[in-house]
Amino acid sequence: MLRSNTCGALRLDNVGESVTLTGWVQKVRDKGGMIWIDLRDRYGVTQIILQEGTTEADVIEIARTLGREFVVSVKGTVVERFSKNNKIPTGEIEIQPISIDVLNESKTPPFTIEDETDGGEDLRMKYRYLDLRRNNIREKLVLRHRLMQVTRRFLDAQNFLEVETPILIKSTPEGARDFVVPSRMNPGEFYALPQSPQTFKQLLMVSGFDRYFQIVKCFRDEDLRADRQPEFTQIDCEMSFVTREDILHTFEGLTKQIFKELKGVELNDFPIMSYDDAIQYYGSDKPDIRFEMKFNDLTEVTQNNGFAIFDSAELILGICASGCAQYSRKQIDALTDFVRKPQIGAKGLVYVKYNEDGSFKSSVDKFYSQDDLKTWADAMHAEPGDLLLLLSGDASATRKAMNELRLHVGDLLGLRNNSEYQPLWVVDFPLLEWDEESERFHAMHHPFTSPNKEDWSKLDTAPGEVKANAYDLVINGVEVGGGSIRIHDRPTQEIMLSKLGFSKEEAIAQFGFLMDAFEYGAPPHGGIAFGFDRLCALLGEVESIRDFIAFPKNNSGRDVMIDSPSPIDATQLEELEINIKN
Amino acid sequence: MLRSNTCGALRLDNVGESVTLTGWVQKVRDKGGMIWIDLRDRYGVTQIILQEGTTEADVIEIARTLGREFVVSVKGTVVERFSKNNKIPTGEIEIQPISIDVLNESKTPPFTIEDETDGGEDLRMKYRYLDLRRNNIREKLVLRHRLMQVTRRFLDAQNFLEVETPILIKSTPEGARDFVVPSRMNPGEFYALPQSPQTFKQLLMVSGFDRYFQIVKCFRDEDLRADRQPEFTQIDCEMSFVTREDILHTFEGLTKQIFKELKGVELNDFPIMSYDDAIQYYGSDKPDIRFEMKFNDLTEVTQNNGFAIFDSAELILGICASGCAQYSRKQIDALTDFVRKPQIGAKGLVYVKYNEDGSFKSSVDKFYSQDDLKTWADAMHAEPGDLLLLLSGDASATRKAMNELRLHVGDLLGLRNNSEYQPLWVVDFPLLEWDEESERFHAMHHPFTSPNKEDWSKLDTAPGEVKANAYDLVINGVEVGGGSIRIHDRPTQEIMLSKLGFSKEEAIAQFGFLMDAFEYGAPPHGGIAFGFDRLCALLGEVESIRDFIAFPKNNSGRDVMIDSPSPIDATQLEELEINIKN
Repeated sequence: MLRSNTCGALRLDNVGESVTLTGWVQKVRDKGGMIWIDLRDRYGVTQIILQEGTTEADVIEIARTLGREFVVSVKGTVVERFSKNNKIPTGEIEIQPISIDVLNESKTPPFTIEDETDGGEDLRMKYRYLDLRRNNIREKLVLRHRLMQVTRRFLDAQNFLEVETPILIKSTPEGARDFVVPSRMNPGEFYALPQSPQTFKQLLMVSGFDRYFQIVKCFRDEDLRADRQPEFTQIDCEMSFVTREDILHTFEGLTKQIFKELKGVELNDFPIMSYDDAIQYYGSDKPDIRFEMKFNDLTEVTQNNGFAIFDSAELILGICASGCAQYSRKQIDALTDFVRKPQIGAKGLVYVKYNEDGSFKSSVDKFYSQDDLKTWADAMHAEPGDLLLLLSGDASATRKAMNELRLHVGDLLGLRNNSEYQPLWVVDFPLLEWDEESERFHAMHHPFTSPNKEDWSKLDTAPGEVKANAYDLVINGVEVGGGSIRIHDRPTQEIMLSKLGFSKEEAIAQFGFLMDAFEYGAPPHGGIAFGFDRLCALLGEVESIRDFIAFPKNNSGRDVMIDSPSPIDATQLEELEINIKN
Repeated sequence: MLRSNTCGALRLDNVGESVTLTGWVQKVRDKGGMIWIDLRDRYGVTQIILQEGTTEADVIEIARTLGREFVVSVKGTVVERFSKNNKIPTGEIEIQPISIDVLNESKTPPFTIEDETDGGEDLRMKYRYLDLRRNNIREKLVLRHRLMQVTRRFLDAQNFLEVETPILIKSTPEGARDFVVPSRMNPGEFYALPQSPQTFKQLLMVSGFDRYFQIVKCFRDEDLRADRQPEFTQIDCEMSFVTREDILHTFEGLTKQIFKELKGVELNDFPIMSYDDAIQYYGSDKPDIRFEMKFNDLTEVTQNNGFAIFDSAELILGICASGCAQYSRKQIDALTDFVRKPQIGAKGLVYVKYNEDGSFKSSVDKFYSQDDLKTWADAMHAEPGDLLLLLSGDASATRKAMNELRLHVGDLLGLRNNSEYQPLWVVDFPLLEWDEESERFHAMHHPFTSPNKEDWSKLDTAPGEVKANAYDLVINGVEVGGGSIRIHDRPTQEIMLSKLGFSKEEAIAQFGFLMDAFEYGAPPHGGIAFGFDRLCALLGEVESIRDFIAFPKNNSGRDVMIDSPSPIDATQLEELEINIKN
């Protein structure tokens, strides 16, 4: 190695040693007779000290030529610092150099390489290799590395086999849009990049692999919202001879291990909530249960009092903000403005202050007596000092808006602490979802999800009521993973595909290989996939996944650093036998 | 779990226990009063025994309906076997069932699910999910799994960070052909799939990541030879502040650890051989050094004796096959036929038998005296009883042919034992290779490889003589890995690209981002990549990589199981704004 030690290694114990350090110049402070250099590498920062009279003149001369981000090699002796810095692990020592060699110079970086940088998003992405030098970005990728190692060690110890499934597969029109790859050897034909290894992992179960996992790249050609990437990573798992409970137990174990090793947090056993309850009490299939504030259905106790808005509503919901009865006019107005935002979509907000003296003050005092309001408060188990917030309208829209309001109030009250974790299994999802636009059912998870046994008979008569043997892992309101027990026989798979609108021919063309496989002794099986980027962000206690990806793409799917995608040579197009339309 | 134990778990200690096993019916033997079922899963085989009088009649009835590969659940009691089978770990016990449930039936498989199958390659690939059920195929994938875990544990412990680099990158005309992916959001533009993460891992070094690794899929759109796959896997690594010796030391350590954990073999320190020596003594840059039989240059001692074939040859090489002087006419003829095969390409073979009595018998006795032949034998350090084999002609072709002959004779003499391992570092490769067809230099490794320092001055005057600071790891004649110390400054990279025929504009368009990065404090760095599939095959002691890949493609790049590549919808083409040529 060109170094004897890293910049994070030396301590008081090393005083007197001759060392060679290499790294980047973080900072040079030149006070005339004394020069300090902060030398940085991945492992830390070590101070170099030069002093006229003590340090050789030529070494001082070199030090004076150093700029930010120069790469240097420093030979010298470890000495005890006079004024120690207890903020860094190497803060008790410094290096008196006998030589400094410049290994590479650096132009002035376009933004500062500090935790708080002056670089905007676009500039940081163009110079991502400099952005990655910042400690807080690198730490996110170190966390990602550690998450990968913990995950694999856990699953390996549980007899899961890591199997690589192909990246060049077959396009299927179901689900999101595929990226496709023209085949030169088979002109006019295309591979597709996988949206998930779903069918392959099921085939591995048919093969008797028993337990499979992979940390794997998946691809979706979707219009990118703020926090989506065209390529993303999954922890993908499948098990044979299991029930839902076995899967929940195994991956609750993995999740606990991850939080223990990476966060030092011992998670309690995860509660299980039905999809119906999640919708009823939280208006969301991924409720944040770090705080209560459940929905109360007030339709019955509020209607038929002459308040037209409520009387014409399909659903009236209330939540109780504890101890907020003293909210000011301005605070209430802000909440009203919040729910009226187009992305929330409520027309207005009804509030009821349950004063400390037991009286009520509401925005609907014209229509409701103190007794009426007491009835509401009792229905919500509210206490004096609380603030009741009501939304009304179409059932589904009201639930959605109330979910947003609940989370917003949770934020205001400081109930959503990013370093507190409340995992939750949500189960018994609907198997099928009616799509108004295409006028047909879609699979809520995917076409391979098994219906719950007891609902099987309803598949023909009331398909919308059939529950799936599917489950999501939700932590702090974030969907971290999801999966299901799968269909493992051909007749059921055929019925499922027909319900989804596949003709018999389409079903065979797309999934014939899987249904064929089911006829050769397919075991009962099920699995789960975790969104790896999302899990990283959750563990990193931030919202955005982007900084957990070394080289992310922007919202137009571009890598602005390497300038990709880009035009290709005419000869390449010719070999592929494709044309670009004009 | 639907089982209490796996089919590989039960021993004498478990006798008397009530258990539930699940698995596949391997075999049913029905001897009338007694029925034996071999029940198989990933973990082993357990025998089920049914006996009229002891076993309930309805259970016997079910047993008689079972076919090969049915999936069943068997409840019963563990009993000691009367006649034990010491070939399997569960051979001392068997199960007396109280119930057998068929979890799934199976059609008769198209080939037998045994180590020695009656299925041909095509059939096995179409039903790969059944082929993967065979123990010897699954074991190969278990080996692959273990190799992945060992590799990551070792590198993690050495402070390497696993970083995922993007799969959707930018096409570069240098090197093999890229697979490309049309971009819908950027019509007329394409992503490319990476042939390796080369530039990204170098950028991570510029970012100060210090040590990087990844076990990563790479892609090449090449015409597939027997044992190439369009997608393949690499162990990809890069380190900063290193010399060549640091890299060799680190990855010799990894290789030793792999062989220790997976093969129980303690490898000796790896010898280092220069490329020039490898070519001179073995005619190959990946010599198999499990046996000596080095080339001897006999040009000087054989020429100018009137034997026209030798006299007109550029090079005359000899190898010495120890103890083969008694080879028969037929055996010698077979060797001659071997070297004359079109893929070897020699015109003929000269042999000299060094008889036990000290006399010589050769195919060129007309031209050479016994004394002449003694001179040859001495030049080759041959002893009585040895057989000398000589090839002659154009230097490069003769070396190539002699390499093949040497390996062939090594095989004949049993000197190439697949369970013996002889690793070797080959170093000091030429930096550039002259390509006759395009009349320009190509990079022998790739354009980012650093020249050896002492050869730097020759880059302008004698570019073909410049050695690269590059190295290959060769084990048993197989190139397992390769890498180099990289160029880490813009001026050198610019010169290198210009020598490779890039115009300044092309160089910037392709690799501008990397050369820009070199201007912001790039550290000295180098790395290596291991061919993961090839390493698996080596550890598995077989030639072909295909069975170490769960779902391989055939020589036309097709996955015959899922029938991919395949045509895609017209709407997909429309969205991508491309046409297929007619």
